[in-house]
Amino acid sequence: MRFTFLGTGAGMPAKERNVTSLAVNFPEYDGDLWLFDCGEGTQRQILYTSVKLTKLSVIFITHLHGDHLFGLPGILGSRSFQGALTPLTLIGPKGLRDYIETSLRVSGTHLCYSVNVYEIDSERTVYENDHFIVDAGELDHGIKTYGYRITEKDQPGELLVDKLLNFGVRPGPIYKKIKEQESVTLPDGRVLDTAAFIGKRRKGRTITILGDTRPCEMSLHLAKNADLLIHEATFSGNCDQLAHDYHHSTSLQAASTADHAQAKALILTHLSSRYQKKKQSALLDEAKAIFPITFLAHDLWTYELKYQSRH
Amino acid sequence: MRFTFLGTGAGMPAKERNVTSLAVNFPEYDGDLWLFDCGEGTQRQILYTSVKLTKLSVIFITHLHGDHLFGLPGILGSRSFQGALTPLTLIGPKGLRDYIETSLRVSGTHLCYSVNVYEIDSERTVYENDHFIVDAGELDHGIKTYGYRITEKDQPGELLVDKLLNFGVRPGPIYKKIKEQESVTLPDGRVLDTAAFIGKRRKGRTITILGDTRPCEMSLHLAKNADLLIHEATFSGNCDQLAHDYHHSTSLQAASTADHAQAKALILTHLSSRYQKKKQSALLDEAKAIFPITFLAHDLWTYELKYQSRH
Ligand SMILES: [Zn+2]
Ligand SMILES: [Zn+2]
Repeated sequence: MRFTFLGTGAGMPAKERNVTSLAVNFPEYDGDLWLFDCGEGTQRQILYTSVKLTKLSVIFITHLHGDHLFGLPGILGSRSFQGALTPLTLIGPKGLRDYIETSLRVSGTHLCYSVNVYEIDSERTVYENDHFIVDAGELDHGIKTYGYRITEKDQPGELLVDKLLNFGVRPGPIYKKIKEQESVTLPDGRVLDTAAFIGKRRKGRTITILGDTRPCEMSLHLAKNADLLIHEATFSGNCDQLAHDYHHSTSLQAASTADHAQAKALILTHLSSRYQKKKQSALLDEAKAIFPITFLAHDLWTYELKYQSRH
Repeated sequence: MRFTFLGTGAGMPAKERNVTSLAVNFPEYDGDLWLFDCGEGTQRQILYTSVKLTKLSVIFITHLHGDHLFGLPGILGSRSFQGALTPLTLIGPKGLRDYIETSLRVSGTHLCYSVNVYEIDSERTVYENDHFIVDAGELDHGIKTYGYRITEKDQPGELLVDKLLNFGVRPGPIYKKIKEQESVTLPDGRVLDTAAFIGKRRKGRTITILGDTRPCEMSLHLAKNADLLIHEATFSGNCDQLAHDYHHSTSLQAASTADHAQAKALILTHLSSRYQKKKQSALLDEAKAIFPITFLAHDLWTYELKYQSRH
């Protein structure tokens, strides 16, 4: 699972950081691709990465502030121009459909694929496929804003083929039965206890991607025991009044949420452009003092999240 | 009058060329600033120029295709964030108001200045201020598209102060009368024929900025005797069938329009990303063979149009 940060700034684009977008790519699942938020200029940022719009299947929008949204119509049009024919799902707060329909209509944009817009109306499971369930929860940002918790489904253990061969069971339709049933009667009459011939399960990963928010209970809930928490850090630790007034978080608050939720790793993003190189390091350091496994995202940076070990 | 090309590509952003936008700045008129079109990412391009959004007074949109439009909501929000309080006028085809109102509404964008949207409904004068008249004419691009002809008003000659002093006329309210009246009676009883004390008039400049278009009569009309014509050249000269099919022009067609309209200079822009460095030179050279004073725009390039000499 690969996270490519396309934009990591707050409010307005800056030279160093574009406005918010995050690509989540699944090389382990046919290269399927999701986007979280889509600020203006996201499609141009993508030109500097290996992200392919044709692989894009879902776009999650945390909230409709322009710095998270205004790149969306351009992405839709370019995805079509690049030849994508597979459906695209858009998930976000109410108003998303109106914005997309109006933008496509006035601009005369014809898409060669179908778009399925899902406007979230309460906290619940908002997306599911063979490998993942995504739940949304409402955050505290002045405008309707959702955080997303991505739960990977546990993977059953693999068939222990060598052991089966030693036991005299050759490949064939029977292998499917061994995977699915608790006991199987072999052609020679022996009854197989299948559990002994199946390896360890792999526990699914959990990733929490929050939108802009003040610290809140829902953040803790969504981030509980997550393998990775991606959290905004618009301001540095000493600016909590400013963060509160603008409905944002400080780096310390993000670290504190990761700590209390017992997340395993934290990535800070959505930095105010007031912080230049040196101050960015300070902002990261103060977060690490609370939650050591913290990273500070920058534009075009890629983070890899490995499988859990089997057990 | 200074033209800063913020985006000179066609259709989709590329690394070399962003989608279309052109800033027209008037250092001779208090630094007033206009934009022509506003593709996605325009506000980030501006960060690499001396363009100041607070000086922006009018945005002209040629047509509502996304690559000319989708940067507009971001520009409006950022102009407000940067402290602009003066009104902003938006001029373009029908649909512009709907797009802007929807974008601002769903994104919860509050502007600290007023926006005046003018949707063009027929070919006519669409804007006038103390120094300029702007006329619009409908082009041939499949979607409603306008070209703009900017006519600078002639400037009256300046008062010949040295000559007046020699004649014994000292500065005072009488200077205003000399400027405005054909003859003025001096306090000592002499009657002054004011024409002899006023310098040569300065003829206003004419600039034609066309949107995407096939070659058409209206282009010729709008570009007639223009001091500068800015014309799209999506394709090279040998692609006229392709240009026709996509409702665009070739570099040769742009040059031919400049030639027939007897324009004084031509700038080509809106190039397809299929043309890399070498092919771009070829595209320019073939235009120059028809119309020698041709320039090829590139992103962040600035062109200065001088005053006409007085006569
Ligand atoms: Zn926000
Ligand atoms: Zn167009």
